[in-house]
Parts: sequence; structure tokens; C-alpha cells
Amino acid sequence: MLSLTVGYQGVAGSFSEEALFNYFPNDIDTKNFEQFEDVFIGLDKEVIHYGVLPIENSSTGAISAVYDLLNQYDCYIVGETYVKPIQNLLGIKGANINELTEIYSHPQGFEQSKTFLSNFQCKLIPYYNTARSAEYIKELNNPTIGAIASKKAAELYGLDILAENINCNQHNTTRFVIIGKSLKINNVCDKISVVLSTKHQAGALYNTLKHFAMNDINLLKIESRPVQHTPWEYYFYIDFEGNIEDPFVAKTIEQMKIDCHHFKLLGNYKKQIKD
Amino acid sequence: MLSLTVGYQGVAGSFSEEALFNYFPNDIDTKNFEQFEDVFIGLDKEVIHYGVLPIENSSTGAISAVYDLLNQYDCYIVGETYVKPIQNLLGIKGANINELTEIYSHPQGFEQSKTFLSNFQCKLIPYYNTARSAEYIKELNNPTIGAIASKKAAELYGLDILAENINCNQHNTTRFVIIGKSLKINNVCDKISVVLSTKHQAGALYNTLKHFAMNDINLLKIESRPVQHTPWEYYFYIDFEGNIEDPFVAKTIEQMKIDCHHFKLLGNYKKQIKD
Repeated sequence: MLSLTVGYQGVAGSFSEEALFNYFPNDIDTKNFEQFEDVFIGLDKEVIHYGVLPIENSSTGAISAVYDLLNQYDCYIVGETYVKPIQNLLGIKGANINELTEIYSHPQGFEQSKTFLSNFQCKLIPYYNTARSAEYIKELNNPTIGAIASKKAAELYGLDILAENINCNQHNTTRFVIIGKSLKINNVCDKISVVLSTKHQAGALYNTLKHFAMNDINLLKIESRPVQHTPWEYYFYIDFEGNIEDPFVAKTIEQMKIDCHHFKLLGNYKKQIKD
Repeated sequence: MLSLTVGYQGVAGSFSEEALFNYFPNDIDTKNFEQFEDVFIGLDKEVIHYGVLPIENSSTGAISAVYDLLNQYDCYIVGETYVKPIQNLLGIKGANINELTEIYSHPQGFEQSKTFLSNFQCKLIPYYNTARSAEYIKELNNPTIGAIASKKAAELYGLDILAENINCNQHNTTRFVIIGKSLKINNVCDKISVVLSTKHQAGALYNTLKHFAMNDINLLKIESRPVQHTPWEYYFYIDFEGNIEDPFVAKTIEQMKIDCHHFKLLGNYKKQIKD
């Protein structure tokens, strides 16, 4: 049997790697990349079969760079999965929480632990991502320097957990999408993602959205992103319920396209249970 | 005459300070704050009369933290202004562009200069904002360390401009809003901003938006942000044309509220010309 190689952004111990193993079986090959865009390039060059990318966090919102790349690259969303990014304060072996002076993490790591951090006078230093922050403080090997990252990162880089589960919001969850080179549609697919830009005229956005109501299709989400080089025009990323083999859904899509300047079907996949 | 004190986030030489002087006359007092939220707190505690905050960039999109704070604090948008954030590569006096090994800037500074930076092998270090990056490399006083910031920051911190106007997108513009403690409405106001969350039922978002079309009101922008502590519900920030003293506009707002769970009028102000 052909082995499967799946890519993600970040390093081992990241929440992206956790999302990957949520969705795929344990015996696949993984490949990690430096930047989100590298995952798309890897897919394009057939270095990986699929990629796993964070697209939205329930507290901090859309991960805009991933939205932009989904529109830019020739790929499709084939699935989704959810991960609760549980943050922990880590230090090198023997570090004391009260002696920390600097903490490294991704800005979202700081944002998600804001209430906990307000009790400390530490300097917060933004870094590439949570797992690389853990790796970096291991290298620095200084007991006054901490990182905010996952438990898995603590295990991987041999760090102490100085404070466990420091998230201010215990419901905090990140949605990840699985991307592939082609659409993968079967009868269990019940969620559709599209991206469109409307013609530059009054009422165009409304005219596009009205087809959802007319065909009784449930609109799940709208996210807007700027169109590059044409200031103050927008791409709208829309998620809605349905299977594109359903004639009503197919009709809605055809009708929507009429008022669109740009239209791309991003995928039709199985909706996962949110927590 | 009472003097006016206006607050902004960042340090002297920042694009926020430039936006402030775009909107207000030169003889006002300014007060700078560390964080976006500090500007809102300053307004609340009557330390400042107005605040100036970036809300959206034409290339990189919404500044989500500012959207969230506008909903959270008891304040109103009383005006808007646009600034073109022109980025430059700065170094200490005598630095040579080919000898740089590290560059500090805000992640948006890197993003806006991506094409230019792709010609260099420098390590890019994310920092609080562009002007503070300039201030920091002045402190470091190392000819191999550069910063991406404004020309004004170069002047203020006595730095050399190693490369001028390095933006990949020459149309790049940031929209700023001016916030105050009360609504300031007169007959020149022609743009309205609201934030709402819809009831948790199929079609609720569509039912809210349909009133724009029914009353022939031009929808300018929709931005979505997560509702904290209730994962996967959204606040929609909507900009549209009109003056709330116009009976059609007042009626539209009353109708929209019916399908809303939360509704806040963020302001009615004069639309500025975009570039």
C-alpha cells in the first residue's frame, strides 16, 4: 500500500502536529515546514499528499494568512478537525516560576494566557510559534527564561511544566483544515467553503447572499479579506451547509456566481463536531 | 480655549501619530500609550479627549484587537482618516545594507516589505511596532542590525535610511478611526458603523442583512469576530452609508435589531476619501 505523507507548519510538539494526528492515522509520514505557504508549495510540488493548517481560533478569530493562501493556491479543503490548544508555562529543569524574567511564545500564546500572565512582571517576547519557543528556551538554558507552549513540547524538549493549563478561556479551540490537490466528494460531505468577490456596485454583496435564503441553505460563516492591489475591495470566504451533488445546492452556486467578480469552490467535506 | 489631548498607541514617529496629525490640528497635546487597550482606558478615565486607532490595512486586513475593543468599551467612532504606511530599511549611522544580519520590525512591517526582503538573508525579528524597532536598534548601536520603520522614525532616532519606500504594494493604506466618549452627529455625517450578533438560528444573519436592500442602503463592509466564551458565534461589524437622522436609516436600524442578540451603534461620522 502507498504510504501517505502529510505536511504541517511548525515543529514537533505544535498544535498543528496534534491536529494532523487527530485526523490521520498514526502510521503516516509527516513533514514539517517553516511557513504556512511552504505547506501549500509542498502540496503543489507533490512533496506531500495532504497539508494540515489552522484556519480559525474560537477566541482570537481567523488566521488570515491561511485564508489568503487557500484562495491563491490550486488546492481544495478535503476535511476539517478541531484542537483545544492548552497552554502551559514551561522552564528548563529546576527553574522556579518566581524567578522568571522573560517569557517567549507566539503572540496568540500570550493572548490566550493573558489573565494568568497579568500576575507576573515578566517581559513577554513574541516568537515564531509556541513549540519553537520551547525549543529556543531549551537552547538558551537559562532558569530565568520561560516559554508558553504545549505539554507535548515540554516532553519533547525536556522542559519542566511550571504552571499547567494557563488558558484564560477554557473553551478555546482551533479549527484546522486538511488540504489536498483535488476535491474529494462523497455522500457524507455536508459543508461547503467558497471564496468570492462581488462586482463593484451597490447591493452586490447582498444580491449574492440572498440566494442562500431563497434556496433555504444555512449560511455558517462569512469572513472578509482585502483584495491585494485593489484597496478596499474584499474577498468573502463563506461556509454553508450542503453537498454540491444536491441540485438545490448546485443551483445556489450557479446563481451566486452571477453577481461575482471572482468565485472559487474551496471544498466540500464532512463537518466535524465543534466543542 | 480648552486644549485638546489626543491619545494614540505606539511611540513618536509611528504611523498612528501621523494619522493623529492628519485629523487634528498641530497645536493639540498628544499622549502615547503602550497598548491599544490603554487608549480606550485613557478615554474612559478622561485622560484624553479622543483616541486615534488603526482599524484596517488595505493589504493585510482588519486589526482585530481594535475591533474587539470598540465593542467592549463605552466609546464611539467620531471620525476616520487614512495613512499610507511607507516603510524604509533603517540602520545606525554608517551602517551598510549588505552587512545587515538581523532586522527588527512589527510583523506587518515585514509583510509589507516581503518582496524587498526576499533579496536578503537577514534574520527577521518581530518587535512591538515599527517605531519602537527603530528606537531599539538605536539603543543596540550595532551596524549589522536594521529596522523597518517610517522616515519620521529615522529622523527622530537619528538613523540612516538604507533603502527608501520598500513596500511591495504601493497602494498600501491604513484606515484609522477617531474615538470619543459620545456620538458627534451633524448633517455631514454619511457613514455608520454598528456591531451586532445574530440570534442563534438558521437564516438570522441573512434576515438582518436584508433590511439594507429593502431600504436601499449601501452596505460598505462586513467584518466578523468571534464572541468570547461562546465558541463559533460571531460579532458582525458592519459599515454602511447614511445619517441616523434620516428616517429611512433610523427605520433600517430598528428593523435590524429584531433579529439581533446584541446590537451597538459604534458611530456616525464623515466618510473620508480613500486612496
